[in-house]
Amino acid sequence: MVDKAVPDATRRSQRSHRAILDAALELVGEMGYPRLTIEAIAARAGVGKQTIYRWWPSKAAVLLDAFVALGERAAREAGGDAASEIPDTGDLAADLKRVLRATVDELTSPAYDLPIRALTAEGVINAEVGAEFVSRILEPGLRLYATRLTAAQEAGQVAADIDPRIALELLVGPLTHRWLLRTGPLTHAYADALVETALRGLSPR
Amino acid sequence: MVDKAVPDATRRSQRSHRAILDAALELVGEMGYPRLTIEAIAARAGVGKQTIYRWWPSKAAVLLDAFVALGERAAREAGGDAASEIPDTGDLAADLKRVLRATVDELTSPAYDLPIRALTAEGVINAEVGAEFVSRILEPGLRLYATRLTAAQEAGQVAADIDPRIALELLVGPLTHRWLLRTGPLTHAYADALVETALRGLSPR
Repeated sequence: MVDKAVPDATRRSQRSHRAILDAALELVGEMGYPRLTIEAIAARAGVGKQTIYRWWPSKAAVLLDAFVALGERAAREAGGDAASEIPDTGDLAADLKRVLRATVDELTSPAYDLPIRALTAEGVINAEVGAEFVSRILEPGLRLYATRLTAAQEAGQVAADIDPRIALELLVGPLTHRWLLRTGPLTHAYADALVETALRGLSPR
Repeated sequence: MVDKAVPDATRRSQRSHRAILDAALELVGEMGYPRLTIEAIAARAGVGKQTIYRWWPSKAAVLLDAFVALGERAAREAGGDAASEIPDTGDLAADLKRVLRATVDELTSPAYDLPIRALTAEGVINAEVGAEFVSRILEPGLRLYATRLTAAQEAGQVAADIDPRIALELLVGPLTHRWLLRTGPLTHAYADALVETALRGLSPR
């Protein structure tokens, strides 16, 4: 978004902003949430502490913005608005496999895994951080599933009496469980098996 | 297990052992895993540090034993070997609802919630603690689901080509996700909806 019309001061400010968010992500992965400090973020980003406090009230606020920015960047790199919707090709299983496979890739990539683990773990024990994490980072993603599943209901591909909120948890819940607790391999084959099993259910047909 | 034939020294030793495990659970819930120390456990239990080190090499080892003992105690209080199997009444949905409702009760009870959250959060960021947590505490429970689901396959109540490992994650994954991330109410009604949705699947019948 940097263009020639932007004054130097604004451009410097944008660079500092981005450096602070990058530093926060790196450091939380390296040292964990409890030991992370504004001082450490400032030192890594090459800015003064006051520059951070001018924009954010706390380390939690910096980190949450850093994760939001990370998600937006990943979406741009994936080519447009991958983060703003789940594809609707009419083939629900294929669309869900595509998004769950992308989630597997994200959660197993070193740039994401450690920082997101650190923030998630803090949210597990700190209800205030957890609530911010859920409302700013997790819920927007869950709503995309709910929207896609509701469209599938309208298309007659998901039973009309299924609660989309329960349905999406059958996909996201097992994946998150396996990622957080490392109970098994997190692969594309697993993402596919999850989608197929959730769609058809456990009972014999 | 204390009976009159047990010498006083053994009985004192059993009392200390139990006091240490209780103290470890209380303290990890109060201060979290990173700040927990053997010194603090010893002080709360009213024993010397050396008494703890005689039985356990680390705070992680004390805590894991404390959680195993907590599970065994809960199973005894629930009347026998609730922890050693999932009931098989022939009605798979009813049996799964019973065990998931009991899990909801456990995860929402104050005595369990904070200590188990603290240990789970540590396992999320500390792979070594996580591996011990999974192998000693989580996996034995997951195997009970696998056994019950395999029996249901043999009885023709679960499709023969379903992987019991994927199937059990459709139940345990969403419940754990909701508990850890607090994305929605954790109730008996939710446990029931999860079982019903997982069994029949999302597709129209």
